[in-house]
Amino acid sequence: MTAGLSPADFVKRLDATADDTETLLAALLSDEVLPDEIARPKRVMEAMRYSSLGGGKRLRPFLVVESAAVFGVDRKAALLAGAALECIHCYSLIHDDLPAMDDSDLRRGRPTLHKVYDDATAILAGDGLLTLAFDIVTRDEIHRDPAVRLNLTRALARAAGIGGMVGGQMLDLAGEGRFGDTGPVDVARVQQMKTGALLRFGCISGAILGEASADDHRALDIFGRALGEAFQIADDLLDVEGDAATLGKETGQDAALGKTTFVTQLGVEGARQRVRDLLAQGDKALDRFGGRADVLRAAARFVAERKN
Amino acid sequence: MTAGLSPADFVKRLDATADDTETLLAALLSDEVLPDEIARPKRVMEAMRYSSLGGGKRLRPFLVVESAAVFGVDRKAALLAGAALECIHCYSLIHDDLPAMDDSDLRRGRPTLHKVYDDATAILAGDGLLTLAFDIVTRDEIHRDPAVRLNLTRALARAAGIGGMVGGQMLDLAGEGRFGDTGPVDVARVQQMKTGALLRFGCISGAILGEASADDHRALDIFGRALGEAFQIADDLLDVEGDAATLGKETGQDAALGKTTFVTQLGVEGARQRVRDLLAQGDKALDRFGGRADVLRAAARFVAERKN
Repeated sequence: MTAGLSPADFVKRLDATADDTETLLAALLSDEVLPDEIARPKRVMEAMRYSSLGGGKRLRPFLVVESAAVFGVDRKAALLAGAALECIHCYSLIHDDLPAMDDSDLRRGRPTLHKVYDDATAILAGDGLLTLAFDIVTRDEIHRDPAVRLNLTRALARAAGIGGMVGGQMLDLAGEGRFGDTGPVDVARVQQMKTGALLRFGCISGAILGEASADDHRALDIFGRALGEAFQIADDLLDVEGDAATLGKETGQDAALGKTTFVTQLGVEGARQRVRDLLAQGDKALDRFGGRADVLRAAARFVAERKN
Repeated sequence: MTAGLSPADFVKRLDATADDTETLLAALLSDEVLPDEIARPKRVMEAMRYSSLGGGKRLRPFLVVESAAVFGVDRKAALLAGAALECIHCYSLIHDDLPAMDDSDLRRGRPTLHKVYDDATAILAGDGLLTLAFDIVTRDEIHRDPAVRLNLTRALARAAGIGGMVGGQMLDLAGEGRFGDTGPVDVARVQQMKTGALLRFGCISGAILGEASADDHRALDIFGRALGEAFQIADDLLDVEGDAATLGKETGQDAALGKTTFVTQLGVEGARQRVRDLLAQGDKALDRFGGRADVLRAAARFVAERKN
């Protein structure tokens, strides 16, 4: 580790943000009706809570909080922006797990939402979380300057939308041959969109909230893209080499689907080398921030070397 | 008609805004990749265009444009806000039509999106439209003051979300007995949330964009709620008395589902009387605006007396 941060200290820090995010999400997903709302029906709230609370590393909120910390941004403000991002992430898992999409029965070792409730409730809970994210990200507590909050809101919409995550899920399904032969799969493009866009948003959100210079913003952008690709390669490697019990989901899924992944393209050793290159690339981008970016450097290593 | 506006002139005006909205949506749903986007996959774009272009009265954008006109707001700005609202409306139709939800094969006389494509594409196209709405509503052209755009964004999120439309669809499904016996149906509450919230947003968005006084805002709020309820009662009446060919969808659906509606609660004559009361209530709220609100008054009548 380049950083002056032990792995144990890093995990402590990650856990602390996960705890704070959990508390915040529980409050945001309470039954309390806000101004301009009419009521919060019990069933949709329970479904949203089932899929959003009680688990996950909360990696995306952590990236928001730690990229914001580089610029001395208030932690509470960053946690709120992180909670908005986590709502988007949770909605995407709910919709991706649906029978019409990936048809998954398990998520984080628990039955998926549509198995516990039903498809209609899962669709609506996902829609509800996606919409709530855009309520949260506009809130006054996130930044005193509305122009900054607007920039953040628009960046979130673009990361999550057709030009980002939603488009990436479409490409991923197409790559499985779901819509007939649509030509060779561009693994890097699918990754950039499906998983990369939200991770990158986590990293640049600190620059947006911190009103960073264009160069500083660009450095976090480069770092965020490298971290995102490393995340996906680690995922592909875990599907080949991982342990189902540790992962909380089945392994060998990609091979079973005959899916093109970074591992089928680069081989196991090539994929590992690519991760090392990406970590070096991320470190280099963060050089300008010196010790202020130690936690982000450690986050990239954590993502690349994780076992689940 | 109270208004100094003939029915023919009203329809001309409605059509003009529908045309402008169509043009704007076609541009917003082009393949052009925006900053912070990675790519716009062909299939999801085509699916979104199928469900968003080529039809509809564009009532919601019309309400935005005409409520904005009361305060002299730039028409182009209001059209953009209206397009964001229409994206939300179109996404809601796509998701509501899914087999897991209302399982509808026809919409506006054409096969529904999931019939033409598939459920996965329909879910993603809906997610894409919902997310795009929040990109559009933040755009600089909507208002010079970012604080105003943020207010509009948050109001849209609350109208569309768990405390508005999404929550309303959940209540509506519950009212059909989909989740077992969940007690008596509160028809007014379902209406306020499922269809009312977006229509109300259309009416108050003019006040937000026009930075109206609290009293003016409240007047449009009252008008928007009355118009929303009148819209739903007209819908319930059409399901009983309407003509399938004119409607472009089957009639008698509510009765077939044994659904509680305004008509089953009030009877046909009671429902008609309630519409008259609502129109009077809406007119009264608009009194303060004099002739500037003539088009809105005509819009309420159009909504209440429509044949499809």
